[in-house]
Amino acid sequence: MKRIIAPIAAALLLLAANASAQTFKAPSPEGWVRTSATQRQSEFPKMNNKGEYWFRFRAPETAKDVKVNFAGQDIPAQKDAEGYWNVIATSPKVGFQLYSIVIDGVKYNDPGSEVVYCNGWAGYIEVPSPDDDYYLMRNVPHGEVREHYFWCDVEKTWRRVYVYTPADYETNFSKRYPVLYLQHGAGEMEQEWVHSGFAAIIADNLIAEGKIEPMIIVMNNDFVYRPGDTRGRLAMSPTYSENFDQMLIYESIPDIDKSYRTIADPQHRAMAGLSMGGMLTNSVGLHHTDMFAYYGILSGGTVSEPDIIRKDIVKLVFETCGELEYPDRIKNDVDKLNAMGINAKYYVSPGTAHEWQTWRRSLHEFLPMLFK
Amino acid sequence: MKRIIAPIAAALLLLAANASAQTFKAPSPEGWVRTSATQRQSEFPKMNNKGEYWFRFRAPETAKDVKVNFAGQDIPAQKDAEGYWNVIATSPKVGFQLYSIVIDGVKYNDPGSEVVYCNGWAGYIEVPSPDDDYYLMRNVPHGEVREHYFWCDVEKTWRRVYVYTPADYETNFSKRYPVLYLQHGAGEMEQEWVHSGFAAIIADNLIAEGKIEPMIIVMNNDFVYRPGDTRGRLAMSPTYSENFDQMLIYESIPDIDKSYRTIADPQHRAMAGLSMGGMLTNSVGLHHTDMFAYYGILSGGTVSEPDIIRKDIVKLVFETCGELEYPDRIKNDVDKLNAMGINAKYYVSPGTAHEWQTWRRSLHEFLPMLFK
Repeated sequence: MKRIIAPIAAALLLLAANASAQTFKAPSPEGWVRTSATQRQSEFPKMNNKGEYWFRFRAPETAKDVKVNFAGQDIPAQKDAEGYWNVIATSPKVGFQLYSIVIDGVKYNDPGSEVVYCNGWAGYIEVPSPDDDYYLMRNVPHGEVREHYFWCDVEKTWRRVYVYTPADYETNFSKRYPVLYLQHGAGEMEQEWVHSGFAAIIADNLIAEGKIEPMIIVMNNDFVYRPGDTRGRLAMSPTYSENFDQMLIYESIPDIDKSYRTIADPQHRAMAGLSMGGMLTNSVGLHHTDMFAYYGILSGGTVSEPDIIRKDIVKLVFETCGELEYPDRIKNDVDKLNAMGINAKYYVSPGTAHEWQTWRRSLHEFLPMLFK
Repeated sequence: MKRIIAPIAAALLLLAANASAQTFKAPSPEGWVRTSATQRQSEFPKMNNKGEYWFRFRAPETAKDVKVNFAGQDIPAQKDAEGYWNVIATSPKVGFQLYSIVIDGVKYNDPGSEVVYCNGWAGYIEVPSPDDDYYLMRNVPHGEVREHYFWCDVEKTWRRVYVYTPADYETNFSKRYPVLYLQHGAGEMEQEWVHSGFAAIIADNLIAEGKIEPMIIVMNNDFVYRPGDTRGRLAMSPTYSENFDQMLIYESIPDIDKSYRTIADPQHRAMAGLSMGGMLTNSVGLHHTDMFAYYGILSGGTVSEPDIIRKDIVKLVFETCGELEYPDRIKNDVDKLNAMGINAKYYVSPGTAHEWQTWRRSLHEFLPMLFK
C-alpha cells in the first residue's frame, strides 16, 4: 500500500506547502557583514549596524516548521527563491547569545557558526553591549593561554587544565605571580572561561590599564575524566567529580605551584567560579580557608557555612549575580558576612540573567579587588 | 485549500511511513561504551569491542529519509520505540573519521559528538588503528600548547598562533630549542594539528622515547584574519592569505624568536604542512632556503622549483602521501631531487588517502629526521 499512498501524499503535501509559502525577499546586501562568530567558510550569519542579524541556511525539503531559536526567541524562518531558509531578527539581550536552527521541533547547530561548549556544542552571536569595551581585544600586550596536563592520581587519569599567564610571564623570569583558580558552570568545560568568558582578554586589558596585579588564572574542569583507552583524547564523563576537593587542593594546586612561578601562599591565592563553579568555591574552597584569601561566588548562591571562614586569612568574599537572578539574596548575605566581621562585597549585573554577560562583568569587577 | 489538503496529506504520509517503518531493535547494552569523542552530556555514540559504532539521535517527525554519513558511507537509520533514530555500523577505514546526520539530504552535526574544524565544525569518531600507539596519551612528561598572539602589521590585526613547547621548556631555562613551523590544510584552522592531528602527543611520546630532539612546534593559520571590530574575537576570512609569505617570514618567525627560547638559525628551523600547508611549504618555505634547513610536504604535491634550493643549507626535503593518493609522483620527485644532489626522502602511508591518518603517520616519520 505504501508504494501508492506515499507519492500521492507527498504531492498533496507539497501543494499545501507551496500554497502557504511566503517567499523571503532578501534585503539589499549593502551594510551586511559577517558576524564575529560566522565560521570561515560561511557567508552567514550576517549583521548590520541597525542591530539586525540575518540567518540563512538549508533545511530538508520535508521540513514544515522551520525556526531560529536566538537569544531566547523562537522566530519563524522563510524560504527564499534559492531554497534557503532565512530569519532576520534583533536581540532583546546584549552579549553572548546562543542560537539554533529548529526543524519541526528538533534543534541543530547552524553549520555557518563557530561553536562554544554550552550544554553541548552550540552556535552563537556576540551582541554588542554599550559596556563591552573591557572584553574587546586591544593593542596591548597579550598573555598566553596554555593547555597544560597533569596526572590526577585520585582519578587515575591525565587532566587538561587551561592556564592563563600574563604577558610579562615570559620576559620577567625572576618574577613570581599570584594565582586565581577559576571554575566554569555545569554547562561548560575548562576552556569556556577563555572562549566564552573572554577571561584572558579581560585580564590583559586590566593589566595594561594598571588596574590589577598581573596574575596566573588556572581553569580546571568541574567534571570527571573518563579513564581508560580513549584513543589519544581526554574524554569527559557526565558526572560531577566527587573527588573535586582532592583533585583541586591536593593535586592541581601542587602541580601549578611546581610548574609555574607562583607565590605559593594563601594571601596570593584566590578561588572563584560561576554557577556550579561558584558552588564549588563555596563547598570546596571555603572549606580550605587556610589555602585562599579571596573568594568569588558568581551566580553561585550564597555562603553556606560562614562560621568556618578564618578571619585571620580571608580578605574578601565577593558575591555576584544578574539583576534578573536573586540580587536581594546576595545583598543580605553580604550584610550578614560583614556583620560577622568578614569583608564581603557584592555586585549585581544590570539587566542580565544567568548568562555570560553577568560573569564577564563579574570577573571584570572581581580581578581589581584581588591581591591588594 | 491548504487547510483541507494539509491534514489529509499528513495523515496519508504518516500511514505510509508507518507501513514501511522498520522498528530498530536495540542490542543488549552490555559491552557498549561511549566513544572517545562522545560529548560529556550525551550517551551516544557508543562503540563495542567488535569495532561497531552505534549512533542514536532525534530527527524531525517530518523526516522521511534519515541517514548517517560515516567514514564515507551513507547508512540508513531506523527509528526505535522511543522515537530516536539509530545506526549501527563499522568503519572501512581506521583513524579519524568524520560523521554527520543526513536528513532528507541535508547534513547536520550530531549534537552527541565532540567537534573539530574540518571544512566547518564536524562530529567525528576515532577508529582504532593497529599502529596508533604513537598518538595515544602515555604516562610521560607532557608539553604545553599555547594560544599565543602577535600583531601582524601586513594584515593590521592580531593573529592567534598555536605553539607547542616541550615538557622541559618550563624547567630548563638555559636551554634553547629548534623550531618546526607546521601548517594545516585548506579545510582546517591553526588548532587542528593539535586537536585532529595529535601533534603534541606525537611529539611528547617521541621525546620520551629519546627518538627526537625536544623542539618547539609553531602552528599558524593559512588564512586571513578579518580586520575591524569583531567583538573580542579573531574572526577568519574565507580568503587564502596573499600576505602569507610576509606574515610568516617577516612577522611570525621574528615574534617567535623574540617570545621563545629558540635557536634562531636555519639549521634549527624547519617548515612543513599538510595539503595546502604543504603547498605553502613549497611556494613560500622553499623560496626562503636561507631560512629553513628541513622541509616536509605532506599530501601537498611535489617540489615545483628544485633549482632554487640552496644545497649548502637544506639538509632534507621530505615528501609524503597516502597510498591511495599519488605515491609514484612523490617517489619520482624524490629520485629527481636526489639526482640533483639534494637529500630527499619519501614516505607512503599504507592504505590511507587524503586524511588525518596519513598526516599523523607522516609527522611521526618526519620528526625523528629533524635537527640531526
